[in-house]
Amino acid sequence: MATGKINVSVENIFPLIKKFLYSDHEIFLRELISNATDATLKLKHLTNIGEANVEYGNPMIEVKVDKEGKKIHITDQGIGMTGEEVEKYINQVAFSGAEEFLEKYKDSAKDSGIIGHFGLGFYSAFMVAEKVEIITKSYKDEPAVHWICDGSPEFTIEPADKTERGTEIILHIAEDSTEFLEENRISELLNKYNKFMPVPIKFGTRTETLPKPEDAPEDYKEETVEVDNIINNPNPAWTKQPSDLEKEDYKNFYRELYPMQFEEPLFHIHLNVDYPFNLTGILYFPKLSADLQVQKDKIQLYQNQVFVTDNVEGIVPEFLTMLRGVIDSPDIPLNVSRSYLQADGAVKKISNYITRKVADKLKSLFTENREDFEKKWNDIKIVLEYGMLSEPKFYEKAGAFVLYPTVDEKYFTLDELKEKLAATQTDKDGKLVVLYASNKDEQHSYIAEAKDKGYEVLLLDSPIVSHLIQKLEADNENLTFARVDADHIDKLIQKEEEQLSKLSDEEKETLKTTLEEIVPKTTYTVQLEAMDSNAAPFRITQPEFMRRMKEMSQSGGGGMFGMGNMPEMYNLVVNTNHELTGSILNTEDKAQKEALVKQALDLAKLSQNLLKGEELTAFVKRSFEMIK
Amino acid sequence: MATGKINVSVENIFPLIKKFLYSDHEIFLRELISNATDATLKLKHLTNIGEANVEYGNPMIEVKVDKEGKKIHITDQGIGMTGEEVEKYINQVAFSGAEEFLEKYKDSAKDSGIIGHFGLGFYSAFMVAEKVEIITKSYKDEPAVHWICDGSPEFTIEPADKTERGTEIILHIAEDSTEFLEENRISELLNKYNKFMPVPIKFGTRTETLPKPEDAPEDYKEETVEVDNIINNPNPAWTKQPSDLEKEDYKNFYRELYPMQFEEPLFHIHLNVDYPFNLTGILYFPKLSADLQVQKDKIQLYQNQVFVTDNVEGIVPEFLTMLRGVIDSPDIPLNVSRSYLQADGAVKKISNYITRKVADKLKSLFTENREDFEKKWNDIKIVLEYGMLSEPKFYEKAGAFVLYPTVDEKYFTLDELKEKLAATQTDKDGKLVVLYASNKDEQHSYIAEAKDKGYEVLLLDSPIVSHLIQKLEADNENLTFARVDADHIDKLIQKEEEQLSKLSDEEKETLKTTLEEIVPKTTYTVQLEAMDSNAAPFRITQPEFMRRMKEMSQSGGGGMFGMGNMPEMYNLVVNTNHELTGSILNTEDKAQKEALVKQALDLAKLSQNLLKGEELTAFVKRSFEMIK
Repeated sequence: MATGKINVSVENIFPLIKKFLYSDHEIFLRELISNATDATLKLKHLTNIGEANVEYGNPMIEVKVDKEGKKIHITDQGIGMTGEEVEKYINQVAFSGAEEFLEKYKDSAKDSGIIGHFGLGFYSAFMVAEKVEIITKSYKDEPAVHWICDGSPEFTIEPADKTERGTEIILHIAEDSTEFLEENRISELLNKYNKFMPVPIKFGTRTETLPKPEDAPEDYKEETVEVDNIINNPNPAWTKQPSDLEKEDYKNFYRELYPMQFEEPLFHIHLNVDYPFNLTGILYFPKLSADLQVQKDKIQLYQNQVFVTDNVEGIVPEFLTMLRGVIDSPDIPLNVSRSYLQADGAVKKISNYITRKVADKLKSLFTENREDFEKKWNDIKIVLEYGMLSEPKFYEKAGAFVLYPTVDEKYFTLDELKEKLAATQTDKDGKLVVLYASNKDEQHSYIAEAKDKGYEVLLLDSPIVSHLIQKLEADNENLTFARVDADHIDKLIQKEEEQLSKLSDEEKETLKTTLEEIVPKTTYTVQLEAMDSNAAPFRITQPEFMRRMKEMSQSGGGGMFGMGNMPEMYNLVVNTNHELTGSILNTEDKAQKEALVKQALDLAKLSQNLLKGEELTAFVKRSFEMIK
Repeated sequence: MATGKINVSVENIFPLIKKFLYSDHEIFLRELISNATDATLKLKHLTNIGEANVEYGNPMIEVKVDKEGKKIHITDQGIGMTGEEVEKYINQVAFSGAEEFLEKYKDSAKDSGIIGHFGLGFYSAFMVAEKVEIITKSYKDEPAVHWICDGSPEFTIEPADKTERGTEIILHIAEDSTEFLEENRISELLNKYNKFMPVPIKFGTRTETLPKPEDAPEDYKEETVEVDNIINNPNPAWTKQPSDLEKEDYKNFYRELYPMQFEEPLFHIHLNVDYPFNLTGILYFPKLSADLQVQKDKIQLYQNQVFVTDNVEGIVPEFLTMLRGVIDSPDIPLNVSRSYLQADGAVKKISNYITRKVADKLKSLFTENREDFEKKWNDIKIVLEYGMLSEPKFYEKAGAFVLYPTVDEKYFTLDELKEKLAATQTDKDGKLVVLYASNKDEQHSYIAEAKDKGYEVLLLDSPIVSHLIQKLEADNENLTFARVDADHIDKLIQKEEEQLSKLSDEEKETLKTTLEEIVPKTTYTVQLEAMDSNAAPFRITQPEFMRRMKEMSQSGGGGMFGMGNMPEMYNLVVNTNHELTGSILNTEDKAQKEALVKQALDLAKLSQNLLKGEELTAFVKRSFEMIK
């Protein structure tokens, strides 16, 4: 048996770094600015603990594009490097100076915000540059050095005459990467990755108008001045304590995050936890439009204020991916498969923590200002309803704040609803029947009939509502939901008393036969009912169970297999006590009888949105004739 | 000045390979099977050119999961390695044996399908394994060797007693990667990445029932046999010549690609080009549902039969990303930013080639079997209309096959339409007016009126149709489009003749004042017209320009800024020659007059889908009263 060591030659690995290091070349700028930030934070730390005897001052990082010269310059005013340090940190691929620093200053540097990890970031420069220069001067009293490498991987190093402390990186951009010589492109990248990094980043200058002096003469002319254009906010809201922030600060930060978003968020949740994992962040509930597709990918994930991704799948519970905002955690592993992420204990805990914080916030909003919470209900309900269906832990807590609004805009919790309806809407079998509508306009006449009886009608119009009520029925004994058009109102909530029929059994039989000859059998089942003589003579209803199963099957998951494609089936409920029904029975002329039934059926169809196209045109024409 | 060479130590780089090599760890299996495939293809090539004097046979690759032992085995029957070759290819990170092979056998091996490039694939094993073993025997007459490395990066190597030619890789799966010990997970990966690789891949066995012998006795019992479970199709349709394939073969391949897709594709386009780039593939037009969101990410990109990604953005023109199918090209650069991809000359050419092939195919389908093409029209129109708007080259060719269907399901090209309508639908100013509807049901009464006049009405119901007709009007002189409900039909296509009014000017004045007192002014503008006495007495119209701008603004891009939120404005066109209009004028009783106008307005609103909610309920109730 022989032993040996796998070896790697820099000639083989260098071309690969260029191709493989990151799947997206634009990452180079994030990496180089992260290095510049680390160099600055290291100096800050050393001056803080008295190890560096220099003035820290107000250092910034500057990015410059020299389109003519095909160069990008990134200059910091940080710790700098001596010739020896260049040798150590730069000339050795994958030796991490950041790790070494954190190791050396363990306890004191724990919260210094140092970003680096792997000692590879610098080499990402070669993804876009054919030649890279470093001009650097250490904070120590040693001469500056100038390092040049064309990626061959040979380099040269010589003394330089740089006098200010810090490091300048010069990228000679390669032919296939000239997109990065466009100011717009660099602006875009700075805005994407570095908008909240902790050291000010200058990119060009901008003109500012000086404030008009109080004693300005009448012919005062505005004076302008060139100022540094700082592209980042080094102290974003999420890095502060909630107690140091006002409501307005949260709103301003939302605008910073989403400058193109004109609507204000409904409310925010400040996340801040140290143990068992480190996580800060702010989540916002936006006003959600009905079109949920557009809403995802809005939560941004940062690590130490560096933007990483806007795909938080697996980290944030799915029902909350419709929210917006920021999460910053150095503890989330990123270079692993998504399925591993979902199984990872730490990540699972993060996800549970977020769910709990959201539920707590909702409860306190509800308790502190119910009126305001009710106003926001329609904009947040989809998220909450989806959460109830998908996260058992959220469902447990939801009873305390989830609302059920009526068509008259009264809002009840489930417990309140049960109490309120107990006296009026309990049927003869002791079941509490909750009536609901899915559309106030389309079901108007049915709602009106229920309200005439003194019943409350909920307005439940989310796309997943059939799944939710199915679950509520399963978890609450003697509770049942029925849409107002599922049957005639007296049948939906059956009481002991019974209406007397004006028609004899024989007359009913005759009427039924007559109607079944005229009304299309495949779609409508005729159902005679003795009702109040003021109730509608003809009414089209659709049984609850069938319709709900169909809806569940169409909105995915649940329901019964294949139900989504079942044809629509309706009942035609005919009020035997209405005057019109008597007229139909007593009309001798067959054509006239048929015309009467058809007109009545058309009117019932209108109330259920079933009269369309050619039928509607004929109805309108006929009706114009009737009134002319 | 000093010079030097950047160096890299294997201790530093090895931990990074584990974390960084691929952003998704599952890639390891694709890489190891690609290596096994290359080993097999190399042997094939060497036997072909007479350099290897062995029997090639029917080699396969076998993948085995040993859950108990926490191991995965990947075994090939390819070229194998001698001890010396292990030293050269394995012990040197990033030295590519594939590149070396292609270099050595330049011309002859050009089309051998060798996959490897960078010499890194093998190391991806360490992303999921804590220890890796290689047992390999070369096709040359040399002893087998056994190599073991625990990623330290120390290895041991010793002679082995393997007698069959080929290489076995044994992965000892690490604690954080146990997901890969699940058979289902491996099945999923094989299905995703290796489904069409060129060497058969065995994963377990399956039971097959033997065919019943012809002379089987009556009490014959089915016999079963264990056979290798081959998970891939080594010769997928796209690698063959179109002339070797039947229609049924294309359909079968579609089913192979999308086993969960029950609908058949409408037609396919076989891509096959050598110069100036190498590209093969098959694209399918699926039946498109109205919900376009769901349809993207269905085209799969392969390189030498290895699955790479289903994100073809930038490679396939955007309007074709709704199609399905496969593209295979070794020439598409992948590790570059998307914006570079879009600017890259070769990629641009690929995109143009695909557009041209699609247009040619559509033209030939139209020419060869117009009837069939018309049947498919509704399922393909969205793609084509979007293509006309987004790709000038496609727009140029589209005249030859893009169809404009009528509500009666007749189909015209634009040229045919112009010819057909010239005589009847040219107005007094010489403009050809094309009438269209967006919904047969909702605009039924307007369509009926236009058809009564002998006009053709198109059915244009795509969401982007307002953009398309805006463009067609701009490019075709004296052509204008009007939706049937944009005005009264006699005003939409104005001819010389004029209808006489039964009402005097004074009566008209009185009528107008009366109507304006009853009809809500903010929504409806009253417009008196002398029309045929049989035409509807009241009709609600919505001017074309305003409506179209609004729609364009809502469907994104075009239109006028802010138009999307304008309130709806309608005209109430009153036919002064209708009997009902006379009745209104002559009714003395004020309440009765108002009732008449309101009922007529309600009927007009019904025809335009504007009577809803409380208004509809009241209308229905009133109408029941009228007939009882």
